[in-house]
Amino acid sequence: MKIVKASIIGFGSIGQGVAKALLMKKAELNKEGLDVSVVAITDSKGAAVDEKGLDLKKCLQKKAETGTVASEDLLGMTGLDVIKKVDHDLVIEVTPTDIQTGGAGLLNMTAALETKKDVVTSNKGPLTMKFRELSNLAEKNNCAFKFEATVGGAMPVINLMTEVMAGNEIKSVKGIFNGTCNYILTRMYEEKSGYSEILTEAVDLGIAETDPSYDVEGIDTACKVVILANAVFGMNKTIKDVEITGITNVTYEALEMSAKSGKTIKLIGEVRKDGKLSVAPRLVPIGHPLSVSGTLNVAAVQTDLAGEITVTGKGAGSLETASSILSDIISIYKCDCKT
Amino acid sequence: MKIVKASIIGFGSIGQGVAKALLMKKAELNKEGLDVSVVAITDSKGAAVDEKGLDLKKCLQKKAETGTVASEDLLGMTGLDVIKKVDHDLVIEVTPTDIQTGGAGLLNMTAALETKKDVVTSNKGPLTMKFRELSNLAEKNNCAFKFEATVGGAMPVINLMTEVMAGNEIKSVKGIFNGTCNYILTRMYEEKSGYSEILTEAVDLGIAETDPSYDVEGIDTACKVVILANAVFGMNKTIKDVEITGITNVTYEALEMSAKSGKTIKLIGEVRKDGKLSVAPRLVPIGHPLSVSGTLNVAAVQTDLAGEITVTGKGAGSLETASSILSDIISIYKCDCKT
Repeated sequence: MKIVKASIIGFGSIGQGVAKALLMKKAELNKEGLDVSVVAITDSKGAAVDEKGLDLKKCLQKKAETGTVASEDLLGMTGLDVIKKVDHDLVIEVTPTDIQTGGAGLLNMTAALETKKDVVTSNKGPLTMKFRELSNLAEKNNCAFKFEATVGGAMPVINLMTEVMAGNEIKSVKGIFNGTCNYILTRMYEEKSGYSEILTEAVDLGIAETDPSYDVEGIDTACKVVILANAVFGMNKTIKDVEITGITNVTYEALEMSAKSGKTIKLIGEVRKDGKLSVAPRLVPIGHPLSVSGTLNVAAVQTDLAGEITVTGKGAGSLETASSILSDIISIYKCDCKT
Repeated sequence: MKIVKASIIGFGSIGQGVAKALLMKKAELNKEGLDVSVVAITDSKGAAVDEKGLDLKKCLQKKAETGTVASEDLLGMTGLDVIKKVDHDLVIEVTPTDIQTGGAGLLNMTAALETKKDVVTSNKGPLTMKFRELSNLAEKNNCAFKFEATVGGAMPVINLMTEVMAGNEIKSVKGIFNGTCNYILTRMYEEKSGYSEILTEAVDLGIAETDPSYDVEGIDTACKVVILANAVFGMNKTIKDVEITGITNVTYEALEMSAKSGKTIKLIGEVRKDGKLSVAPRLVPIGHPLSVSGTLNVAAVQTDLAGEITVTGKGAGSLETASSILSDIISIYKCDCKT
């Protein structure tokens, strides 16, 4: 049995999802020859640390009851402190995304890789800002750096392209990478309604944020386009390199007209091999794999041998995202294959 | 550089596709640390053997010009002879499918695994008949046994479920596993035509076989359902365990009525965890990831953590199928990870 000592940095919805998934999947991980022992968890208030392995059930309970996982004697201990001071192998970095500066996540990932720890993350910010620096650092220190959960939650697009599709040259990737926009466009057509009415509905249902601009203006999609460009095509792009149009000007009339010619309108993010990155509402034929409805995410990958391969899945949700994190962890340690 | 000595058993459309793909991808394979050296190729007339590695370009040319790859002195040498007598590591078994007896493929795979060679295949027959026996033999002799290409050509459904989705429990798989049936149903609706008119069109275009019964009666889909049941769920099923209804009784009127309620009809193969296997025409909501048109294949996988993940791709084509074979080869030797 290979024992992997891990920290969970960030204990919001996704961090808690990871803890739950590790509890649910203990037996399955053991079957793969893995014992993931979480030796530290941090949230904004402080840390819980036990070098023999924390009791995850108790940690989740404490978080639910008191609002923090931190032990009284470790209030104020940060993720960075844990990464630098606690002996472990793997940092699960799931702090909130900050696409302006990379935020604490960037400092955490850098420190983890500098101290030769493997990193698995769902945090888009640092990868949108400093992808190349982080992946170079990982390579230099022979660390794994995996981030399936940053693009499309449970939709396994990155590992599909880099592992399953190995042997294929990837020519382009395009897809729906934001469930909120897909929901709004789907419902506008179904309800014969305008953009702002459906936006209100989406906010009421908790599908859109109270400030939805990050989603509806295409910024979130653009972050994912940047990560795919860097991770899959080996480019060195930031969000400034993406031409972005959101969905705020799409009308019901446009959706209706498209439908009459057998098409629908989706917010499509695209990476082309020539380096062109874009986010814009585009016509998609009904019946094409990209024409999925509701909050789903989808990615269509153009390859030289296999033609077009499409993968669809839930773009959000804490257990869904945790599932991608778990798959990354298994792929690192199952075979001791860090590439 | 790891040198993998391989044989290609069967040199029809798929075998030639594998040879072409190996030629195209020599540099990429080298980058992964692999040098695949094809030391033998067989077709129905005989064999070509060179323990230092055949010139694949010349083999393809000879096949095109003379109808066989066999050397004059090796006419009559079979795949089984090559597997038993030629020293190599990997058997690429791509002979034609025989679902009645398993055909030569079953003998070839058994001999390969008995002589401790790894097997990669696109041949459904042996896996539909004797999956458990073959996979037990592979395990006993510590051989890799990979068969992504048997289900959905280029659509990477098996490796997606067993590798990328690791950590998830698979609850059910359903999908469109036969491009001919999907084409016929799609075109019937588009053309407002009956089944037999569109079948004639499909035969004319080479999309359906002259004897299309294997496809349209759901047998081919059932074979894939059996392989998925055995490979992904660890069941021990054969084609007799599948409840099968084909598409021959689907009418244009049924398609039209479905469309009025936002649905379409697709031939869906399904494996349920309780052991129920079925193939039947089913209603699928338009906009659902399973509602893809044309000759596409698609598989929707229900998981406990990630929810529903869907993958879509071309179900046939020689290079497309070869691409799945290549991905299997890379996954075996890249990391020396035979599980």
